[in-house]
Amino acid sequence: MTPAVPATAPGTAAGTTAPPAGAGPRTGTAPPDAPSILRRCRDLTAPALTDAIDGLHPWVAEMARYTLGLRETDGAPAGPGRGKGIRQALAVLGAEAVSGAGAAGVPGAVAVELVHTFSLLHDDIMDGDALRRGRPALWKAYGTGPAVLAGDALFALGVETLAVTPHAGAAVRQLTTALGDLVDGQADDLLFAQRPWTGPEAVRAGEYVTMAERKTGALLGCALALGARLAGAPDRTAGQLDLVGRHLGVAFQIADDVLGIWGEPERTGKPVHGDLRQGKKTLPVLVALDAARGSAELAELLTAPGALDGDRARRAATLVERAGGRTRAEHEARRHLAEAWTRLTALRLAPGPVDELGTLLSALAERTV
Amino acid sequence: MTPAVPATAPGTAAGTTAPPAGAGPRTGTAPPDAPSILRRCRDLTAPALTDAIDGLHPWVAEMARYTLGLRETDGAPAGPGRGKGIRQALAVLGAEAVSGAGAAGVPGAVAVELVHTFSLLHDDIMDGDALRRGRPALWKAYGTGPAVLAGDALFALGVETLAVTPHAGAAVRQLTTALGDLVDGQADDLLFAQRPWTGPEAVRAGEYVTMAERKTGALLGCALALGARLAGAPDRTAGQLDLVGRHLGVAFQIADDVLGIWGEPERTGKPVHGDLRQGKKTLPVLVALDAARGSAELAELLTAPGALDGDRARRAATLVERAGGRTRAEHEARRHLAEAWTRLTALRLAPGPVDELGTLLSALAERTV
Repeated sequence: MTPAVPATAPGTAAGTTAPPAGAGPRTGTAPPDAPSILRRCRDLTAPALTDAIDGLHPWVAEMARYTLGLRETDGAPAGPGRGKGIRQALAVLGAEAVSGAGAAGVPGAVAVELVHTFSLLHDDIMDGDALRRGRPALWKAYGTGPAVLAGDALFALGVETLAVTPHAGAAVRQLTTALGDLVDGQADDLLFAQRPWTGPEAVRAGEYVTMAERKTGALLGCALALGARLAGAPDRTAGQLDLVGRHLGVAFQIADDVLGIWGEPERTGKPVHGDLRQGKKTLPVLVALDAARGSAELAELLTAPGALDGDRARRAATLVERAGGRTRAEHEARRHLAEAWTRLTALRLAPGPVDELGTLLSALAERTV
Repeated sequence: MTPAVPATAPGTAAGTTAPPAGAGPRTGTAPPDAPSILRRCRDLTAPALTDAIDGLHPWVAEMARYTLGLRETDGAPAGPGRGKGIRQALAVLGAEAVSGAGAAGVPGAVAVELVHTFSLLHDDIMDGDALRRGRPALWKAYGTGPAVLAGDALFALGVETLAVTPHAGAAVRQLTTALGDLVDGQADDLLFAQRPWTGPEAVRAGEYVTMAERKTGALLGCALALGARLAGAPDRTAGQLDLVGRHLGVAFQIADDVLGIWGEPERTGKPVHGDLRQGKKTLPVLVALDAARGSAELAELLTAPGALDGDRARRAATLVERAGGRTRAEHEARRHLAEAWTRLTALRLAPGPVDELGTLLSALAERTV
C-alpha cells in the first residue's frame, strides 16, 4: 500500500462517496443491519472455530475459550467478553463478494479470528493492559507465561487452518504478509511511546497512519482478501480487497482514538479522556501539536512530568479540539472510509454482499457496532 | 508417532545398531567430524538467514541478532551466545540425504532456526530463565513485552520463509504440525511442574517421553523432513525422517537431563545438581521414584518444602543413581538413538549424507557438540 496521505493533506471527496448505510438494492425485505450481518457470519463460522479450539491441548483450549469469551476461568459459559467477530465477517463476506459461498471463506474466518485473538493476548502483555472486554486479560487471569503460550498456540493454529486448504500456498502468504505488518505496527506503536511529543524526534501524523494501517488495517485487509482467495478470486481482486481492509483499519483506528479522548465512559467502558491521561500518542493529539495555534500550552501539558490528572486532561482535550485535532482526525477517518468504499465498488463484485460490506464498513468506522 | 515404550521396558538392541562415529565409507579424506558438519551447514545457511533477519523491523531485527548471538545489545559483533545450528544442519542434510543439493534445504534450515529461536525466546519468559547461552535472556535484556514481540516476529518470518517456496503447502503443513507439538510439549512441561512427585497424580516416565518428543523432537524431525521435502522427497520419506528426528530429540533431551544432574559445571555452565535443586521433573528422577528401592527417602527429600540445598541435592543425586535412575535413563536415550539410526538407514538414502547424519546423531545424543 502507498503510504497514506497525512491528515493535513488538502480536502478530498470524503463524504461524497461514503458507503450507504444499508441502502442497497435488495428486493422484498429490508437490508440487514450491521449486528445481523455480524451474527450471521459468526453463526456460520462458529462450528469450525469451535472444532479448531477443541483440537488444542486441553489447558491451552481452556485459555483460548476464556479469551474468545466462550467460557469463564471455571469453565462456566460466558456472556460478555465475546468479540464482535468483525474479521470473521469480513472473510465470509469476502468470499460472497466474489460470488462464492460464505462457507468457502470460513477457513479464512477461523484463521483471522485466531490470529486476531493471538495478537490481543500478546499485545495486552506488551501494553500492560489488565482488562480486556471488561474482564481480566488472560495474562492477569492465568499468568504471563501461560498467556504467551496460548497466543503462540492460536497463532500456529491459525496458520495450520489455512495450510490445509486447497489454496494453501497463496492463503498462507496472504496471512504471513499481514502478520509481518502486525508485528511492525506493534513495534512502531511501542516505540512511539518512548518518543517525545515535540521536536525533530516527535511522531508525525503520517507515521501514525502507517502504524495504524499495519497494526489494525493489515488483518482486516487480510480477512477480506483471504475470504475472496478461498472462493477462487484472482490475485488482483485479493490485492484490492486487502487495500479496502487496510483503509478501513485506519478509519477504525482513528475513530477509536477520537472515542478514547471524547467518548462517553458509559459507551467506551474507559475513563473520560483516558488516552490523554495515559499519554497515548493518538492522531488527534499529533495533528493538534502539528498545527500552529494552541500547541505551546498543549505541549507543555503533555510533556510535564507525571500523569495528566482530571483537570489538566480536560484542558488538554479542549486544546486538542481547539487546534483542530478532532476535526482533522475525523476528516482523515472519513477520507479512509471513502477510499475503502471507492476501491470496493470499483471491483464490481456481487451487489448483495458488497452492500452488506458497505453497511459493515460504515458501522465500524462510526463505531456503532 | 507411537508412544515410546517407557524407560522400564525390557532391554532392546540398544548399542548394537548405534550410528557409526564418523566411520562412513567415504573415499580419500577422513570423514568430517560433527563440528565441521555443523560449520559447513551453518555457512551454507548464513546468507539466507541474515537476509531474512535484515528484512525485519529494525528494532525487532536488533533483538533477533542479539538472540541469535550475531550481535550484542550495543550492536557490537558477538562471539559467544551463538547457537550450534543443529536444526539448520538437519535441514541441509535432509536435502542432501535424498540426493538434493544442500542449498535446496536452506529455506527449511532458515525456517526451523527462526522457529527454534522464537521458542527459546518465549520459553525463557515462561520458565523465568534469566540466562541463555551465558548471556542475559532477551526478556532480561530488552523487557518481557519486546521479547514476546520479537518471538512473534521470528515465528511469522519462519512461516513466511516456507510459504514462498515451491512446495509451500506441504512445507508449511510440516512446520505447523511441529509447532502444534512444540506448544503441546511446552504446555505439558509447565503443567508437570505443578504435579506432585508421588501418588496417582505423579508424572509417569511414559508421559515424560511423550513431552520430550513434542518439545524437543518435533522440531528436529521437522528440520530433517523439511530439508527432504524441499529437495522433492515424497511424503513417506519425509514422514520417516520426521520420526528419526523425534527419536533423536528424546535421546537428546534425556542426555540433557543426565547432564543437568551429573554434568560438570565447567561443561554445562550450570551449578552441579542444578536440575535437582530446581525441582525439575526429569527422567532419571521419575524413573528412580518408580523403582521400588530407595524411593522413600528420595520422595521425602523431593517433597520437603523449600529448595534442595547442596547436601540434600547431593544425597538426592546419589539416591536417584542408586535406584537405577541414571542407568535406565541412559539406556532409554541409547534406545531412542538406535531407533533413529535404524529408521534412517532403512530408508537407503545417499550414503555420504547419511554418514554425516550418523556422526551428528551420535554427537548430539552424547552431547559432545
